[in-house]
Amino acid sequence: MPAAPPVDPAELDDPLASAQRDAADPLAHHTALFLPAGDVVSYLDGNSLGRPMAATPARLDAFVRGDWGTRLIRSWDERWMQLPTELGDRIGAAALGAAPGQTVVADSTTVLLYKAIRASLAARPGRHEIVIDDDQFPTDRFVVEGIARERGATVRWLAVDETRGVTPEQVRDVVGPDTAVVLVNHVSYRSGFLADLPAITEIVHEAGALLVADLCHSVGVVPTELDAWGVDVAVGCTYKYLNGGPGAPAFLYARADLLPELEQPVQGWMGAADVFAMAEGYVPDTGIRKFISGTPPVVGMLAMQDMLDAIEEAGLEAIRDKSLALTDYAFDLVDAWLAPLGVTTATPREHERRGSHVTVRHPRFREVVATLWQEGVVPDFRGPDALRIGLSPLSTTFDEVRVGVAAIREALQQG
Amino acid sequence: MPAAPPVDPAELDDPLASAQRDAADPLAHHTALFLPAGDVVSYLDGNSLGRPMAATPARLDAFVRGDWGTRLIRSWDERWMQLPTELGDRIGAAALGAAPGQTVVADSTTVLLYKAIRASLAARPGRHEIVIDDDQFPTDRFVVEGIARERGATVRWLAVDETRGVTPEQVRDVVGPDTAVVLVNHVSYRSGFLADLPAITEIVHEAGALLVADLCHSVGVVPTELDAWGVDVAVGCTYKYLNGGPGAPAFLYARADLLPELEQPVQGWMGAADVFAMAEGYVPDTGIRKFISGTPPVVGMLAMQDMLDAIEEAGLEAIRDKSLALTDYAFDLVDAWLAPLGVTTATPREHERRGSHVTVRHPRFREVVATLWQEGVVPDFRGPDALRIGLSPLSTTFDEVRVGVAAIREALQQG
Repeated sequence: MPAAPPVDPAELDDPLASAQRDAADPLAHHTALFLPAGDVVSYLDGNSLGRPMAATPARLDAFVRGDWGTRLIRSWDERWMQLPTELGDRIGAAALGAAPGQTVVADSTTVLLYKAIRASLAARPGRHEIVIDDDQFPTDRFVVEGIARERGATVRWLAVDETRGVTPEQVRDVVGPDTAVVLVNHVSYRSGFLADLPAITEIVHEAGALLVADLCHSVGVVPTELDAWGVDVAVGCTYKYLNGGPGAPAFLYARADLLPELEQPVQGWMGAADVFAMAEGYVPDTGIRKFISGTPPVVGMLAMQDMLDAIEEAGLEAIRDKSLALTDYAFDLVDAWLAPLGVTTATPREHERRGSHVTVRHPRFREVVATLWQEGVVPDFRGPDALRIGLSPLSTTFDEVRVGVAAIREALQQG
Repeated sequence: MPAAPPVDPAELDDPLASAQRDAADPLAHHTALFLPAGDVVSYLDGNSLGRPMAATPARLDAFVRGDWGTRLIRSWDERWMQLPTELGDRIGAAALGAAPGQTVVADSTTVLLYKAIRASLAARPGRHEIVIDDDQFPTDRFVVEGIARERGATVRWLAVDETRGVTPEQVRDVVGPDTAVVLVNHVSYRSGFLADLPAITEIVHEAGALLVADLCHSVGVVPTELDAWGVDVAVGCTYKYLNGGPGAPAFLYARADLLPELEQPVQGWMGAADVFAMAEGYVPDTGIRKFISGTPPVVGMLAMQDMLDAIEEAGLEAIRDKSLALTDYAFDLVDAWLAPLGVTTATPREHERRGSHVTVRHPRFREVVATLWQEGVVPDFRGPDALRIGLSPLSTTFDEVRVGVAAIREALQQG
């Protein structure tokens, strides 16, 4: 995208400061593809729940009256059986750098993480250690702790700074002949730190272990090359930057040449080689479908298709450019307006280590966020004192960032 | 409901034979609550996928534009966090005979069966046997086989006649001090046999084991009293007779006084006692929420609410009356029209052992079903030779049954 005009601190109070940026934004027309947000004047939580697209209500209506309502059960043969891998391949191509046949949409992130870690641990027999960092998203930690207990494995914790995330050096220091699996969050849910996934993957492989990546906070906003980087297994979420709607199913990627070695524990009819054989004994599909267990959650797989259309049209590089411009602008506003009020930042400044949200901290943010939500300014809060400013490049305007940070300033000044 | 007029075989070719029944049906007005089915003149597969209700498109539209589109992330606090247990309690009250606090909506049937069997097995330490029958739905068998392998348990198979299902006597013959869990399908997916769940539960408890019931093919059509019968754990599906849409999430019931003993393996943030604490170490919720793992699949939980409205209004006893009248009528038509062509029935004749579908068999049904689907007559086929006539009492008319069986007759005659 064209370089944004430099920010003059004196100009930051001027609404034009954001208007100019929006006018120069080559992806600005995408913001009109989303449904109106009602009383919300600044939505800064696309990193938790992406906004619905304007095309989605008609898609759902046509689905209910058509594929479901009149094709009925016949739609399983005609369309739905292929949806988990068809959508998986689309996500793979648009956002993961993954060739077809390695990605599937199913279950929730938590259930897929369970399958991913169980399968990876079993694929490294004789090794008993799972490495994760102590600031990973709770569900990742809980899944790993549960699996370690039930399989007699050991969890090796990496201590990370809350304003950063796990580094290649930290991983190198701990991996060894006992390491079976390393689980890394590509972008930290808390700090927004972007891990060096290719370097970490290489180190993990040198130790003979497998790398499982959690892409929840990076998919759709950070260019990712799973095939090229050699990542083994990855899991991510479709309701954040893929705008699939609350609780939309997750996706799992498994490297094609590793797939034959992976065996997941929740054996179900939809992961069988011949789904409708109703045969004795489970024979898993040889492809990525082996990670499916139950009936695919079709209704939850509709809305994300509209966002995939938009991502394919915009391209991930342009999306990343706007993401960096938005987070740069958020930093500028925070430095000018919030730092003087005692707010600190907890997100890396350097582009190459930053995802698409900026985390700021202040002891009063717990009370402030309630006020903001009532005023239609919607970031999210993570205890004890962090407020995350999430910037979803296709739906967030620069003006929303300005309005949002201004509202935070006002709320802090009034307290 | 009023007794249907007796069927005169000579009258069976007369369309009035079904029209009279529809006219006398006290639930007939409910059939207008469903969306038009397009070219489908006889939908006989509500036991696989229930039809969408007329209220559902507007519900989805309001959801996308409202709760999701404008309340956005705030809806988690305002509404969505409670949805899994709120809907669970509604299903429990309307269809399961379950007091509040014991039922939750989550995941797929397969994933919940995995959690249910794992938790039940672990709650009976020192016992290593899981009892199931050899005609259970494939996913039930696959889940049990996988768990047995990973936990070092033994599967004890009960051989059942394909036209029946598991009996209390069979269960009594095998349960003993080694039995940890008995998994029973309430209604057999193949034969439509209705198991004697209260008697089986009593026998299982006498042996000190736990009873897990799969209610997929009974929920919403067979009056069920889980609390009164003392069933330990139950899992079921919401896209058949609860019309939740393809792949809508499943539900799990766990008896309140057993709940403290149950520990499920897929530990996730949404099953934690304090979801947003983001704390170290997993502490499960003390209630039924402990069976949740990941983010609740909200979009998939919408449509079933319209069907729950209808079930609550009609009442399960009236629904069961119509189900029996529909299956009686199907038997009469099959006897008069299909038996002379070599078709046999594989569903119990007695009311107290019958669910809501009638299974018929003929060597040519595999080819016949393709013709029928093209003509808008939609039963389903289960290899090698079975055709299931599924009757969903609130949406199926008697005339649809007549039209459907007549089309089967014609297809067989033309072959």
